[in-house]
Amino acid sequence: MTQTAPWQRHAWYVAATIDEVTDKPLARQICGERMVFFRGADGLSALEDFCPHRGAPLSLGFVRDGILVCGYHGLAVGCSGKVDNMPGQRVGGFPPVRRFAVVERYGFIWVWPGAFETADEAQMPVLRWAESEEWAYGGGYYHIACDYRLMIDNLMDLTHETYVHATSIGQKEIDEAPVRTKIEGHEAITSRSMDGIIAPPFWQMALRAAGLPDDQPVDRWQVCRFSLPSHVMIEVGVAMSGEGGYDAPNERKASSVVVDFITPETETSHHYFWGMARRFSVQDAELTDRIREGQGKIFGEDLAMLEQQQRNLLTYPDKRLLLLNIDAGGARSRQMIEKAIAAERVAEIA
Amino acid sequence: MTQTAPWQRHAWYVAATIDEVTDKPLARQICGERMVFFRGADGLSALEDFCPHRGAPLSLGFVRDGILVCGYHGLAVGCSGKVDNMPGQRVGGFPPVRRFAVVERYGFIWVWPGAFETADEAQMPVLRWAESEEWAYGGGYYHIACDYRLMIDNLMDLTHETYVHATSIGQKEIDEAPVRTKIEGHEAITSRSMDGIIAPPFWQMALRAAGLPDDQPVDRWQVCRFSLPSHVMIEVGVAMSGEGGYDAPNERKASSVVVDFITPETETSHHYFWGMARRFSVQDAELTDRIREGQGKIFGEDLAMLEQQQRNLLTYPDKRLLLLNIDAGGARSRQMIEKAIAAERVAEIA
Amino acid sequence: MTQTAPWQRHAWYVAATIDEVTDKPLARQICGERMVFFRGADGLSALEDFCPHRGAPLSLGFVRDGILVCGYHGLAVGCSGKVDNMPGQRVGGFPPVRRFAVVERYGFIWVWPGAFETADEAQMPVLRWAESEEWAYGGGYYHIACDYRLMIDNLMDLTHETYVHATSIGQKEIDEAPVRTKIEGHEAITSRSMDGIIAPPFWQMALRAAGLPDDQPVDRWQVCRFSLPSHVMIEVGVAMSGEGGYDAPNERKASSVVVDFITPETETSHHYFWGMARRFSVQDAELTDRIREGQGKIFGEDLAMLEQQQRNLLTYPDKRLLLLNIDAGGARSRQMIEKAIAAERVAEIA
Repeated sequence: MTQTAPWQRHAWYVAATIDEVTDKPLARQICGERMVFFRGADGLSALEDFCPHRGAPLSLGFVRDGILVCGYHGLAVGCSGKVDNMPGQRVGGFPPVRRFAVVERYGFIWVWPGAFETADEAQMPVLRWAESEEWAYGGGYYHIACDYRLMIDNLMDLTHETYVHATSIGQKEIDEAPVRTKIEGHEAITSRSMDGIIAPPFWQMALRAAGLPDDQPVDRWQVCRFSLPSHVMIEVGVAMSGEGGYDAPNERKASSVVVDFITPETETSHHYFWGMARRFSVQDAELTDRIREGQGKIFGEDLAMLEQQQRNLLTYPDKRLLLLNIDAGGARSRQMIEKAIAAERVAEIA
Repeated sequence: MTQTAPWQRHAWYVAATIDEVTDKPLARQICGERMVFFRGADGLSALEDFCPHRGAPLSLGFVRDGILVCGYHGLAVGCSGKVDNMPGQRVGGFPPVRRFAVVERYGFIWVWPGAFETADEAQMPVLRWAESEEWAYGGGYYHIACDYRLMIDNLMDLTHETYVHATSIGQKEIDEAPVRTKIEGHEAITSRSMDGIIAPPFWQMALRAAGLPDDQPVDRWQVCRFSLPSHVMIEVGVAMSGEGGYDAPNERKASSVVVDFITPETETSHHYFWGMARRFSVQDAELTDRIREGQGKIFGEDLAMLEQQQRNLLTYPDKRLLLLNIDAGGARSRQMIEKAIAAERVAEIA
Repeated sequence: MTQTAPWQRHAWYVAATIDEVTDKPLARQICGERMVFFRGADGLSALEDFCPHRGAPLSLGFVRDGILVCGYHGLAVGCSGKVDNMPGQRVGGFPPVRRFAVVERYGFIWVWPGAFETADEAQMPVLRWAESEEWAYGGGYYHIACDYRLMIDNLMDLTHETYVHATSIGQKEIDEAPVRTKIEGHEAITSRSMDGIIAPPFWQMALRAAGLPDDQPVDRWQVCRFSLPSHVMIEVGVAMSGEGGYDAPNERKASSVVVDFITPETETSHHYFWGMARRFSVQDAELTDRIREGQGKIFGEDLAMLEQQQRNLLTYPDKRLLLLNIDAGGARSRQMIEKAIAAERVAEIA
């Protein structure tokens, strides 16, 4: 994978949820690299999914005594990528399998597609909602056949809710509320608020779950936060009108974070880990399931639109698109990505 | 789409049947161009199926108050392609969406893939069978994965009926009857007649429907007429033998026109609108259905052969084919197409 | 097909089993060439599957009076490839269809993809097991989406049995037994023997079928013989321990030949004709079926591994693979193929 690929390599991406890697290896392509994830003697590990013997995918093999065994001729490789043994062979001179740095945290498996030695755990994002008992989380996974940056554009401009998600979270007022976009620290932030409106169906449900009336005016907010390499956290919520909106006391609002980890697979496909962390009715597991189901439907609507958009862009590669104020969030995010890629290139030359 | 594509651009093609475009937009690729057809304030319209905002297909949107609204972020475009409005945006400076000229006539939607300004309604074909009460019409649609010119070849040489359609309209005498090919006005015409033969199953049915005996010798004719850009009308029929054949009085013959509109989609696929206009038992709707069903089967046989022929030609691109007398109809038609394409190129340079 | 293709052209390949070509033509691509096999006036014949008239596949046609008739416009071609007739045409000047040499022998149809004139029946392999009453044979066919040479590698290194076929013929001792590889005459041979072991499930079954005990130590052998262009015959068996192994008297052993004809289709796919010829219980047709079924499952396991290996190799075309002692059989076989291809090239220049 050359540096011309449109993604940062030296960064942490979500590769899988923790429960996806059991006693069986998992194959997944991340940032163009075929990887095998498995639980070996040193715990969770990721290697290039390519046996150095004859090129079979190691992910077709199995773990034995903490070692990953190729399912074709039995070459066995440890967590570090060093070949451990192979029946009838002296493996001392065998080239190691490329290793990728991995971390298990917050319910996810994170991988660093760049050189193993450069992996820096200090760069892991801090997700308070994932560790606090004040929050509940539920989520899912979609494979989407489009450039991961189209998903970032999608999430950094929520006016699309009015059209794509008209029956759940969309409402006319989104369109009409101006959007503010800025860079703050290591985040691109785009936000809007809508005061004195009636909540759309999803938020009516949330208000009821939070023990609040669902038929009175609310102040609604959306704060979309992009951070490298490709995470979008969206703070969303409604508060009883006039009580401070985003800053209203907890008992007068229903709020949550829409969680989006967007991991490039190839240049025209990505892994989408979506979910919602909420601060209301956190003990209600049935509600978690219901929200997951609803959110799954909503993101399924995005999926269809994004894959067709990708197809159109591939058919008309030379068309120039418009860049409006509502697109500023996506544009700023892309600038951050480009800058990060350029910095990686400089570092490689140096 | 450059002028090197193997089709005329400044001409009327059948894009759809009228009932295909309802209150919902229709997406269809014609001559390499992705188009969206919809019914707006000015009636039926066709635009490029590409939202200037972010490239989403406009066909995923909806019509509201006579305006086509993009289903992603709500950019709304009128029948002329001018952007009408978009929530929170001043659209005065937005580039227009490319517009295509369309006409509804004869039960079909016709489109002009070349520049809108050059569209010339006077060039629409005149189809008498589509407007006269003396005729009944029924037809259908197939998507076929081959160069549209292979379908023209197919229809301008009906000897294939003997082999591909052996059980319905094929008969040995077709092969044996010599074929005459000529250019007449704006048509390439290839024809044959077979006198004193026994009608094949389809025509026996037609004779009975026309109130004529089905077991007596008939004179059968086939007159294939190609006209630009890619229409083939085939006059076919049988008359009681010795009564003048093609020129026999109406009550002594059963005759019809096989209607073929062949619209390029890509260089290796096309839209095929087929049907039959008949002059016998025109009130018999059940017969119309029966003929449509039979014709659908017959053209399904062609479809299989043509797609495999295309596959073979792509595998062996350098093979030279034979050009026989029976191929003269297709060859003349292709010459007309090439001449028309060359003329377009000259006009563009001038 | 240029000589740069990775296979010998002037050699006999298995194209089909005899029962695959009935009164209907069979289409099959062999060594990159599309061929049609049919039974005509001169018996079994093979031609290029491309009608010289308009490029339709001749395999969509039919055989009439010993002549292959194109299903599109009726061009009829004899077994030699000479056009015999076509309705309304003088075919004297028509170019012939390319002909391929074929032989029916041993239950298979063999084809010579190189120039017809160079076909040399003397080069046909001699298969004693196919003609002797002392042997029984059963087999099957798989289409596999990988380079045919990956299958040769697979079969010339049976250590994979331990991993891919763990529950049927694999056993730990295979891995541990050293392998001997040599060139002998026109064969690359790789072999191993395992003495004093307990037979794995398949061979226990064979021992019982041969009237021998299945719970006593046996000496097991595997002798893999590659011959050009791409046949692998594997002598396998078990004898009661200490009675001479491979050379033990017939009544003290169960032995068979795993038969593998590996015919390139394209550069990344091949036809795989597999089977087993056995010397025990040769009258037992039910056993033949049972072995075929078991072998079909075993080779299905190989299929999955090989297709994924191919995919990995295409993704990482520049990776260098290891070449171990266990790979010597495959490596020697590939050398023989390369040498044969080079010799063909020299012969073409001369």
